[in-house]
Amino acid sequence: MLAPGHRLALRCGRVWLLLLLLLGCGLAPEAGSLLNCPPRCLCASNIISCSKLGLGIIPTQLPRFTAILDLSHNNLTRLRADWTPARLPHLHSLLLSHNALGFISTEAFCHVPHLRYLDLSSNSLKALEEFLFSQLQELEVLLLYNNQIAQMDRSAFDDMARLQKLYLSQNQISRFPVELVKDRAKLPDLALLDLSANKIKGLPVTALKGLPAWMKNGLYLHSNPLNCDCGLYELFAHWHARQLSSVVDFREELVCSLPQAKRSVSVFTLNRHDSLNCSEFKEHMLEAYLGDTVTIDCDTKVRGATTREWVTPTNGRFPEESANSTMTVLGNGSLQIRPIRVEDMGTYTCYAVSQAFNETLYVDVMVHNFTQHGPHDTLNTAYTTLVGCILSVILVLIYLYLTPCRCCCRSNEKLAALPEDSINSSMLSTTPNHNPEAGGRKGSLSQLAASGPMQGQNGKVKPHSTPEQAARRAQKAHRKVSDPDSVSSVFSDTPIVV
Amino acid sequence: MLAPGHRLALRCGRVWLLLLLLLGCGLAPEAGSLLNCPPRCLCASNIISCSKLGLGIIPTQLPRFTAILDLSHNNLTRLRADWTPARLPHLHSLLLSHNALGFISTEAFCHVPHLRYLDLSSNSLKALEEFLFSQLQELEVLLLYNNQIAQMDRSAFDDMARLQKLYLSQNQISRFPVELVKDRAKLPDLALLDLSANKIKGLPVTALKGLPAWMKNGLYLHSNPLNCDCGLYELFAHWHARQLSSVVDFREELVCSLPQAKRSVSVFTLNRHDSLNCSEFKEHMLEAYLGDTVTIDCDTKVRGATTREWVTPTNGRFPEESANSTMTVLGNGSLQIRPIRVEDMGTYTCYAVSQAFNETLYVDVMVHNFTQHGPHDTLNTAYTTLVGCILSVILVLIYLYLTPCRCCCRSNEKLAALPEDSINSSMLSTTPNHNPEAGGRKGSLSQLAASGPMQGQNGKVKPHSTPEQAARRAQKAHRKVSDPDSVSSVFSDTPIVV
Repeated sequence: MLAPGHRLALRCGRVWLLLLLLLGCGLAPEAGSLLNCPPRCLCASNIISCSKLGLGIIPTQLPRFTAILDLSHNNLTRLRADWTPARLPHLHSLLLSHNALGFISTEAFCHVPHLRYLDLSSNSLKALEEFLFSQLQELEVLLLYNNQIAQMDRSAFDDMARLQKLYLSQNQISRFPVELVKDRAKLPDLALLDLSANKIKGLPVTALKGLPAWMKNGLYLHSNPLNCDCGLYELFAHWHARQLSSVVDFREELVCSLPQAKRSVSVFTLNRHDSLNCSEFKEHMLEAYLGDTVTIDCDTKVRGATTREWVTPTNGRFPEESANSTMTVLGNGSLQIRPIRVEDMGTYTCYAVSQAFNETLYVDVMVHNFTQHGPHDTLNTAYTTLVGCILSVILVLIYLYLTPCRCCCRSNEKLAALPEDSINSSMLSTTPNHNPEAGGRKGSLSQLAASGPMQGQNGKVKPHSTPEQAARRAQKAHRKVSDPDSVSSVFSDTPIVV
Repeated sequence: MLAPGHRLALRCGRVWLLLLLLLGCGLAPEAGSLLNCPPRCLCASNIISCSKLGLGIIPTQLPRFTAILDLSHNNLTRLRADWTPARLPHLHSLLLSHNALGFISTEAFCHVPHLRYLDLSSNSLKALEEFLFSQLQELEVLLLYNNQIAQMDRSAFDDMARLQKLYLSQNQISRFPVELVKDRAKLPDLALLDLSANKIKGLPVTALKGLPAWMKNGLYLHSNPLNCDCGLYELFAHWHARQLSSVVDFREELVCSLPQAKRSVSVFTLNRHDSLNCSEFKEHMLEAYLGDTVTIDCDTKVRGATTREWVTPTNGRFPEESANSTMTVLGNGSLQIRPIRVEDMGTYTCYAVSQAFNETLYVDVMVHNFTQHGPHDTLNTAYTTLVGCILSVILVLIYLYLTPCRCCCRSNEKLAALPEDSINSSMLSTTPNHNPEAGGRKGSLSQLAASGPMQGQNGKVKPHSTPEQAARRAQKAHRKVSDPDSVSSVFSDTPIVV
């Protein structure tokens, strides 16, 4: 594929050849010195107005100094490569609206390289060929509304680095030209794209969501036969919440077709339709984790703010107070917080000011009280209790099924009573249970009593416990393992610290 | 007289009252939410096009977001104060050309404060009232060509701080509106004023000469019935030499009427007409005197150069080489030489560069070899010699006719010899000549000899001078005054320092 410069040189080269031939034959008009106000036209210094003259062809003898050329309301059908034999280096506005133009040569704009405003509205254009407008590298406004454009080559608007406004309303376009907005380097200045009243059914919702607010503010999509879905609702509900002109001004015309009902409904009522079950739209807040580097964009509706000032939830003003702070205002006006702390949470306000407008933007920031990769803080509460419980259960199960081997040597009649003593010693004694003298039931009991005169079951102090009570407790030890008292000792509410 | 702000407030206040009344009666249209595309008009997002619909009145229900309103090619006759009942804060272009407008209310633009482009061309306007456009403080382009304007109040364009282009061609204007260009603070941005094809006979030549080149470049005065005179010739010949568009592009239409012949001739041929006797035009060079502070303007044809670079006659580049130099480039791009020297004479070149254009400007500087107030330099050469000669002659005459009184007491036979001694003593002796002993001729001679053994005539050393020689010189002193040796002593080539 050829580079834009080469394409232009090749294409326009052919026109120059033609022009040289014309000059050779003496057919080219004399440039400059004579005032060449075309017949019937009206000329005021650098303006040539040939509007509503019933012209079928464009006058050829246009003065070299022409800056504005008005050919609107005529009967022009074709804009050929040689519509102006001479170069018009000063032409900045070309008005061709209300004609019958059905053909525009891909070389038509070779001689008008400094055009800034081109009105081709209300004509009969059906297709826009590849690189059709690529020679117009200084064009700022292109009006193509009210034609019959159905085919639009993806490269038709390539290399138009200064295009700001593109009106494509009231045509037959069925595909959203995502290439015009997706790669921001292609048309970096595009701030208005009017695609209203076309035949677009589907939108690239994700790509549109990612656009800056000043671009969305000028993206007109109303009066299209859009298919309803929750993504569409969420997209436009967000634009409406931001009070973007493209949605607020044309709220009533932002409709879509419900798949079943085959009728048009307002996009903003989609959350009320049972068939779609869209959830109510809520503006998202910016979420961050402790210690993160957070950049808050001042995503204004209108482009070109000259100054941007931030006010923090604690009324700090940036960039005024940037010294000795975790916050700095970046070159593009965004506020960077590095690292973010819990006390930085709240609503941030951006005041964007330019010659033409003032805008105030609010951004809610929520800071989670832990870092993104390890929730250490919650370990002290519910999580540790749960782990403690599970561990207790495991220990009980170990006690029940993995009893030490020496128990097997005892008499069979004593086997049923053994678990309770064993659980008491293993859970409560501070000394290991392998004293050779404490092999039998009594030894176990004496050790329990010796662990402390005031110490009760499961380590709790029982103040009125006497040697007699201890002897009674020893008799009670004959109960079964399923005794409720014994179970409560394991599942006590004292947490086990892991 | 009221300040502009007050005038505007008063005038527009009345319109607001009217609007409030209308609102009270429920007559005002609902603002905003509904798409109010007026019947039969064509609407594309913020463009409302109601062109060529045969409209006699302006549609009232215009949407609040309208940015471009095209009402051209209709039958509108009046632009009243209430032509739009609602404020149109976003309207930047209003096209009203090709109508029959004969009246515009002085309050017509109260509701469109941000208008930048207003086309009122090809209508039937006859007069522009005071402060008619003063509410349009952001207007950049105003098209009024092809009307019947004969009366234009001096304040009609007051307070239009951003007006850049004003087209008044093809009207009945007979007075050059000097107030538009004279006070540069009034319309500081005005770069194009088209007054062609009017009825102007006289021009304020001095005021026009003083304008910057970028202003002259856009001052169109062709096709007017100008009266021929040498000032006119000089003005346009200078503009032509500078290749200004307003003159170069319309050279053939810059004509004037000769007083006697009552016929139109080209302004550029006036130097060839005997009846006027205009001298051939020559571009003036910048003249300066030694030691002056000289500022050379980079008076470019197009305004807004971003960088200006100067090259001196000795190929010095400024501001690059500004350090340790007498030359500096000022903030406005002018080159300042302080103080100027003879070697600074020659052609200075200014290279002005901007996004839209490159321009090269040449300025010839001539430096006179003396200061403006006192030619000190010439004092050392011819002038001092002349003064010396005159002074010597005076001294000789004093010696001849105003001899001191004591000579009268001497004997008559010695009278003739006395002057020589006297002149020698008075001219050459370092001690005053009133020694009482040196009254006679011998005393005089002895003093001459005693003034130094090696000192010769007129203070010059004569190395071989001996007492014998001195005695011989004393005898020679009997010669007459007219002796050539004696005269040569006075007119020696040793300069006399005055």
